[in-house]
This record gives sequence, structure tokens and C-alpha cells, in this order.
Amino acid sequence: MAAIKVIGVPTSTCTQRVLVVLIEKGAEYVIQPLDMMNGAHKKPEHLAIQPFGQIPVIVDGTFTLFESRGIVRYLADKYEGQGPSLYGKTLHEKALVEQWLAVEIAITAAVVQLVLGPKFRGIPTDEAIVYSSLEKLEKVLDVYEAHLAKSKFLAGDFLSIADLVQLPFLFLLVEVAKRGEVVTSRKHVHKWYETISSLPSWKKVLSLYAWVLLT
Amino acid sequence: MAAIKVIGVPTSTCTQRVLVVLIEKGAEYVIQPLDMMNGAHKKPEHLAIQPFGQIPVIVDGTFTLFESRGIVRYLADKYEGQGPSLYGKTLHEKALVEQWLAVEIAITAAVVQLVLGPKFRGIPTDEAIVYSSLEKLEKVLDVYEAHLAKSKFLAGDFLSIADLVQLPFLFLLVEVAKRGEVVTSRKHVHKWYETISSLPSWKKVLSLYAWVLLT
Ligand SMILES: N[C@@H](CCC(=O)N[C@@H](CS)C(=O)NCC(=O)O)C(=O)O
Ligand SMILES: N[C@@H](CCC(=O)N[C@@H](CS)C(=O)NCC(=O)O)C(=O)O
Repeated sequence: MAAIKVIGVPTSTCTQRVLVVLIEKGAEYVIQPLDMMNGAHKKPEHLAIQPFGQIPVIVDGTFTLFESRGIVRYLADKYEGQGPSLYGKTLHEKALVEQWLAVEIAITAAVVQLVLGPKFRGIPTDEAIVYSSLEKLEKVLDVYEAHLAKSKFLAGDFLSIADLVQLPFLFLLVEVAKRGEVVTSRKHVHKWYETISSLPSWKKVLSLYAWVLLT
Repeated sequence: MAAIKVIGVPTSTCTQRVLVVLIEKGAEYVIQPLDMMNGAHKKPEHLAIQPFGQIPVIVDGTFTLFESRGIVRYLADKYEGQGPSLYGKTLHEKALVEQWLAVEIAITAAVVQLVLGPKFRGIPTDEAIVYSSLEKLEKVLDVYEAHLAKSKFLAGDFLSIADLVQLPFLFLLVEVAKRGEVVTSRKHVHKWYETISSLPSWKKVLSLYAWVLLT
């Protein structure tokens, strides 16, 4: 099979979501970085394949696809028989993957305030927004905690895309913003986070990220 | 096959999302209403199957599932060979369904302010929130417009769950709040909305709703 082309940058959380799945699956891929500093994502060539002017986009032969959460499902389907079964093996397992993918975890606002705004856009942190975002997140993590006490991963005893899509933002909250108490204070959530964040696939994504930072 | 039990109420947008798919598929279902006025959704029996204390939940034999967007995918999978193929027929068609499902349309805040708050919770409309929500919605509808000029439905020339999940909120915005200019001023979006909102399945959902209002 020809390599999947990922148009994106490994520092972007949405691109990381796609990369970790490709790596888990042992799929061949190449990254085609986009010069976002110079607005390449708002140029007509890019808008023709991503009408919102965003990343990531994948190109698989003549097929192009955008939206990271759509892409990870496509990859889980396409590589169903290769690597771990990230979508479950039965109709019911797949439904549970989708159930947990649909549960919204209110983490974006906090991470934007704590990391993305200050580090990439020079905007100071608004602690009130962080507080209200983490307050909502805690309610969801309470449900996770009760659930993960009985289940190794979100959708059952198997790793799935429902777990993997959470990694980029959880990582920024815990390791970069150092505001991981919401995670580490919950025994089972903490153990789950430790398990997924130590996956070799995720370490590999981080190494791509570091490489970019150094060049 | 035994009937699918839907725990929910037909006036709730999230329940409607599930019902329209069941009806499109010609699946057998029964509705088990929940007495939400008396907080039945926050009682232990319900929390045991929906840990967030919300509706809808489906019960299919011994299998229970929550999250409307997870449920509609499960139904599209389970009834793959029955009724219209709401998930597409190929890997690529399914991926495009997922792509469009992942595009977030910023409509909830506007509908909460215009309909759900005033009518169900006695909270007056905050026009500033409506304005900013519709402003974001317009950007997405501009992308829809360009896309629907070339494609009958969101994922291609076939009706899919990506179209159907939008119905409940679009309906409230257009028919109940009478703030449908964002839809009707865009030729192709308007035509698409007319097509999906005249589906017999959607009319049927509305008739269940009206029935509840009258009793
Ligand atoms: N829902 C989209 C969001 C994509 C997105 O927000 N991408 C960011 C990078 S993580 C981006 O391209 N930002 C530039 C912009 O929005 O102009 C997805 O998951 O793919
Ligand atoms: N993401 C959930 C949202 C469910 C939801 O918000 N349900 C509403 C009715 S439309 C509800 O149960 N509200 C009561 C509550 O949240 O306490 C889904 O799509 O199923």
C-alpha cells in the first residue's frame, strides 16, 4: 500500500491525533508540513482540500479527507486487520468506542488558556476560564473514574481511538501546563492516563514534535 | 428482531436524532418516556445506564448504549442491509460521512437562547449570545453552501446520518425561533434543508412530538 500523506505539523494537537493512530497501526505515512506561519493553510490550494483552512488533511491515493476525528475512524476502518483493533471487534464494541468518542471532555478551553494562548499567541492566561473549564472537566472525569475502575480502557479492555484522541490535550494539560491534578487525583483515570501516555506510539509522536522544535 | 427500546422523550432534540434514524431504517422501536420533570434522569436506576443523567439511552436486548451520536452510528451499522444506507456503501463514503459529522456547527448556543431557555426554562434570550453563535454558524454554512452546490447531501449523493443529526436543531432555529435566514438565504443549504426536513421520517418524529404536546 502506498504511504498515507498527512498534511499538518506534528506540533498541532489535531495532527498528533492522526499520527498516533497511524503509528499504532504500523501504517506507512509521510508528513507534508504546511507553512502556517506564512498562512499556507489559507491559500486556495489548501482551501480546495480543507475548506475551513485548517489542518490536518490526509491524502490516500486520490482520496482526501479532513477532520481529525473523521480521519482516525477512517484509519481504524482501513487498517482493521492490521495492528491493534482500535475500533473493537464486534458491533457492540464499536458502538462503545463511538459512545465514549461522543462524550465531550471540556478540556480545550483550559488548554488554550494555559498553553496555546500564552506560548503560541502571546495571550495571557485567563484563570477564570481555566477554572470553569476544569470544573466541567472534573464532572466528566468523575464519570471516567467510576467507569475505569471496571474497565481498562474507555470502550472496554482494549485500546481504541476513543482513548487515543484524548492524548494530545491531556498531555498539554498534565505535562506542559502542569495542571494535571484533575487527572492524577483520580486513581483509575491516572492509571489509564499513565498507560496511554506511555504507549510507544505516543512517545514517537512526541519525538517528532521535539525534532520540529529543534530545527 | 426484538424492538429497540429508546429511553427518552420525543420533545428532546437528542432523542429526536435517534428516532429519525430508527424510522428511516424501518426498525422496530418502542419509546420509554422518562419523567424528567420529576428528576427521573438523576435517579440511581437511570444513572446506572447513563452516568451523566441524561437522555437518550437505547436498550437492544441486553446491550445498552448512550450518547445520541454514538447511537445513530450503531443503528446505521446494525441495520446496514435494511433501508437506506445511512453510512455510505464504501470505506470512502463512510469516511466522508464521518468527516461531515465531525464538522461542528455552532447552532446549540443560539437555539438554547432562542427556544430552549425561554420556552422550557423561563430564561430570557440573550441576543448577544445569539449573534455570536449565528456569526460562527454562518461561516460553517458558507462552507456547506459551496459544498452542497456540488453534492446533494453532505457526504455525497446519498442521505446519511451526517445530514440527519442536524435536523433537530436546524428545525428549532428555522421553524420555531423563526431565525432561519442563515439557512434560507443560502440557495443550496436551503434546498438541502428543505429536502431533509420534508423526509417522511422527520415528519413522523414531529408527529410524535405534537402528540406529546397534546397529552
Ligand atoms: N475539527 C478540526 C479542527 C482542526 C484545527 O483546529 N486545526 C488547527 C490546528 S490543531 C488549525 O489548523 N488551526 C489554524 C486555523 O484554524 O486557522 C479537526 O479536528 O481536524
Ligand atoms: N451528548 C449527549 C447529550 C444528551 C443531552 O444533553 N440530553 C438532554 C436532553 S436533549 C438531557 O438529558 N438533559 C437533561 C440534563 O442534562 O440534565 C447526547 O447527545 O446524547
